[in-house]
Amino acid sequence: MEALSMRTKVPKKLSRPASQFSHLAGDGSARMVNVGGKPVQQRRAVAVGRLVCAPATIRALRQQALPKGDVLAVANIAGVQAVKQAAQLIPLCHPLPIEHVELKFAVKRAHIDITCTVATSAKTGVEMEALTGASVAALTLYDMCKAVDKSMRIEGLRVVEKVKR
Amino acid sequence: MEALSMRTKVPKKLSRPASQFSHLAGDGSARMVNVGGKPVQQRRAVAVGRLVCAPATIRALRQQALPKGDVLAVANIAGVQAVKQAAQLIPLCHPLPIEHVELKFAVKRAHIDITCTVATSAKTGVEMEALTGASVAALTLYDMCKAVDKSMRIEGLRVVEKVKR
Amino acid sequence: MEALSMRTKVPKKLSRPASQFSHLAGDGSARMVNVGGKPVQQRRAVAVGRLVCAPATIRALRQQALPKGDVLAVANIAGVQAVKQAAQLIPLCHPLPIEHVELKFAVKRAHIDITCTVATSAKTGVEMEALTGASVAALTLYDMCKAVDKSMRIEGLRVVEKVKR
Amino acid sequence: MEALSMRTKVPKKLSRPASQFSHLAGDGSARMVNVGGKPVQQRRAVAVGRLVCAPATIRALRQQALPKGDVLAVANIAGVQAVKQAAQLIPLCHPLPIEHVELKFAVKRAHIDITCTVATSAKTGVEMEALTGASVAALTLYDMCKAVDKSMRIEGLRVVEKVKR
Amino acid sequence: MEALSMRTKVPKKLSRPASQFSHLAGDGSARMVNVGGKPVQQRRAVAVGRLVCAPATIRALRQQALPKGDVLAVANIAGVQAVKQAAQLIPLCHPLPIEHVELKFAVKRAHIDITCTVATSAKTGVEMEALTGASVAALTLYDMCKAVDKSMRIEGLRVVEKVKR
Amino acid sequence: MEALSMRTKVPKKLSRPASQFSHLAGDGSARMVNVGGKPVQQRRAVAVGRLVCAPATIRALRQQALPKGDVLAVANIAGVQAVKQAAQLIPLCHPLPIEHVELKFAVKRAHIDITCTVATSAKTGVEMEALTGASVAALTLYDMCKAVDKSMRIEGLRVVEKVKR
Repeated sequence: MEALSMRTKVPKKLSRPASQFSHLAGDGSARMVNVGGKPVQQRRAVAVGRLVCAPATIRALRQQALPKGDVLAVANIAGVQAVKQAAQLIPLCHPLPIEHVELKFAVKRAHIDITCTVATSAKTGVEMEALTGASVAALTLYDMCKAVDKSMRIEGLRVVEKVKR
Repeated sequence: MEALSMRTKVPKKLSRPASQFSHLAGDGSARMVNVGGKPVQQRRAVAVGRLVCAPATIRALRQQALPKGDVLAVANIAGVQAVKQAAQLIPLCHPLPIEHVELKFAVKRAHIDITCTVATSAKTGVEMEALTGASVAALTLYDMCKAVDKSMRIEGLRVVEKVKR
Repeated sequence: MEALSMRTKVPKKLSRPASQFSHLAGDGSARMVNVGGKPVQQRRAVAVGRLVCAPATIRALRQQALPKGDVLAVANIAGVQAVKQAAQLIPLCHPLPIEHVELKFAVKRAHIDITCTVATSAKTGVEMEALTGASVAALTLYDMCKAVDKSMRIEGLRVVEKVKR
Repeated sequence: MEALSMRTKVPKKLSRPASQFSHLAGDGSARMVNVGGKPVQQRRAVAVGRLVCAPATIRALRQQALPKGDVLAVANIAGVQAVKQAAQLIPLCHPLPIEHVELKFAVKRAHIDITCTVATSAKTGVEMEALTGASVAALTLYDMCKAVDKSMRIEGLRVVEKVKR
Repeated sequence: MEALSMRTKVPKKLSRPASQFSHLAGDGSARMVNVGGKPVQQRRAVAVGRLVCAPATIRALRQQALPKGDVLAVANIAGVQAVKQAAQLIPLCHPLPIEHVELKFAVKRAHIDITCTVATSAKTGVEMEALTGASVAALTLYDMCKAVDKSMRIEGLRVVEKVKR
Repeated sequence: MEALSMRTKVPKKLSRPASQFSHLAGDGSARMVNVGGKPVQQRRAVAVGRLVCAPATIRALRQQALPKGDVLAVANIAGVQAVKQAAQLIPLCHPLPIEHVELKFAVKRAHIDITCTVATSAKTGVEMEALTGASVAALTLYDMCKAVDKSMRIEGLRVVEKVKR
């Protein structure tokens, strides 16, 4: 198993020579990468994101919305559905047979952290699926809280783990 | 015209009494807000977001991908399409007759700023549509650059203007 | 307001002369009815359905799944999303600007009753949207319970109220 | 081949210990079941449903709509399309490579019976796909007949066969 | 009523000064045209297309497939559904409240002619919807005949009428 | 490798006995062909189409729109997205794991030629996907040019290559 592990800082060097934007043909036009020759492997990716909001919003959520669970359940389902639609949203993504999706939410004093894990057995990875799930879960939380808090923002959307074997 | 203007900081107080999570029924269950009694008004919202990446990624984009324009064009179209699909992604969003979408991209030394403007004539506003457009445009840029830069992240997704008249 | 009220029994006579299958052209081919000449009115429809299951399934749900709410929340969201997609599922349905959706669930000894209310301001009604919402909510409950109960069935899907004004 | 065969009655006992709602995590939150470790198998499921209507509706259909076939053809196509969209409608369904869909309709004195058969080669089964196909076919028939019959209802939606090998 | 009538030949002059590609911003980037300031009008468009095939294919269709009607019914429904999805397929199209769709098929010796009529009450027209409907109907006929005829082609897709009032 | 190569003329004879419309059941009803028993093979298809327009339109595109590339980039992305949605547009198409899509555009004096190549590893081929991609790319070009040229038409949509191995 090849674990790419956590990475959250800007690297000094690029991962591959800069001439290899794999989604660009020689003439600069965009294209879906040909993954036909790659082996099917079990792949997993984890993405995270954060909805930053007012402490009063969190307090209100804790008092009214969280005990009964629907706010997080709605965001959870929105994230799962978005994972399955990633290839329809991100133009050059390949449609993949998603085998597992799991979203976790951690409610803190002035933000909610979202973690989205996606797994597949396919010829290419699922980072974009995990990022899409975390994004749409965050947007869904934003939608449900926007009537009481107009200062929210979404921060730190990134891939924190990518594994294949 | 009522301009809600720029807001980017966490407010001290909530916009309305905390008991008014408009998407929650009295029993805590989620619901689509009933907008049937509201007037049709011209509405506009602007959302922004930022893809933070390595300076070398920006340099490579400038040399290879940006002169011919396809990278930003792909993100642009992905954002426009996502705006039209917002109500299918965000569970409690109303489907609205989108009348205008425009995405702008500003390529800086170590990030790309995205601005998404959406307009409609409807009974409710288009913040979620604008946020969805900016998010998916950022995700699409991420997708096209991820082969050369594994440290990117999306930051500062928020609504910066909301107007109705 | 014209209330069509409850109807649950097979009528003796048809509502209009049998030659008026409005979705069939003179040559028998299917068509989307032309609603262009009709006025925009506020319209509401309520549909119901029932998931019949084993009493043990209900008991297990009550012990494990219902206190925390996610099972019904997932079905709720699935129903809301399906309402918005009705025109993509039912070929001759018109796309309508849905203004309100609400699903209610009543958990009984050996079944769960589902009620789906939909409202719009449009040239045609929302019965099909309400039926689609109740159907998909029932299917979603079925999906979540099918690992423990292989004898479930969905019964009594019908429109119980249709109003315009 | 393991044939689960016909089952249409409420069982005395649950199929597995009640603690195993496979779609619920330990904390009660919903999740897509991880099927990554399961083998790809040929799977087939058959679901049925019934549109109950007035005898006069059936007579009218026989006289005007059925000879030319479009009413059943429209329902057929709506069912096939719905099978392919099941994972977008049922939140915790896995997207599967559907290999075969077939809908059958039996027009009786006061109802139409619908049978939907779905096959795939995948890591999980297609009951939800077959149920979704039968449901949407029934809803489509309802839509086409609702102008002449306001008392219709959909009954007996259930899985009657599930096979893997 | 302003009737734009039939036009099928290449004009000598452009309809408006060439600097007005309405979908391009000043910097050449694509955008959805802002229709917010336009009045809602009743609009209709008619598009046509032709599937050219072998005479033997038409003879086989006449003997086996056309008497029972499903081939044309399937193409009809595919066209209607595609009209409703035009704004999801054509990136810069506005989502419009489609009020009427009708497809007609004329089976000739060595081709099938398709006519798709679409109507709406909206701020912009429905040519793209009509063209999309005719295209997808033709593609669907192609799909159903491709096992017996590998030489088919689709010709003459164009708008033949566009009216607003 | 079995190359079916170029074919652009109407053949004298049908490819298989006329009784084998594979999408029609014995009773004339449409069905999705059962591909469950076929082997997974690498498959590729190439489709072409042409947007015929006024020479002045091409000149205007060359001066204003093509140097910056967005017109073709938008059509490119629309075509790629349409390929991935073919099974939702063409009722009897199987959903396939698309592994590669590439669109090429050749701008001539009075037309634009479009070539769409699609590859998969699946039990059935991708002609319909390639045709759908070429069609939607052509429709998207039409949409962007229709404000300046009302005489355009789409011609010659056909499959020019189909390969499996």
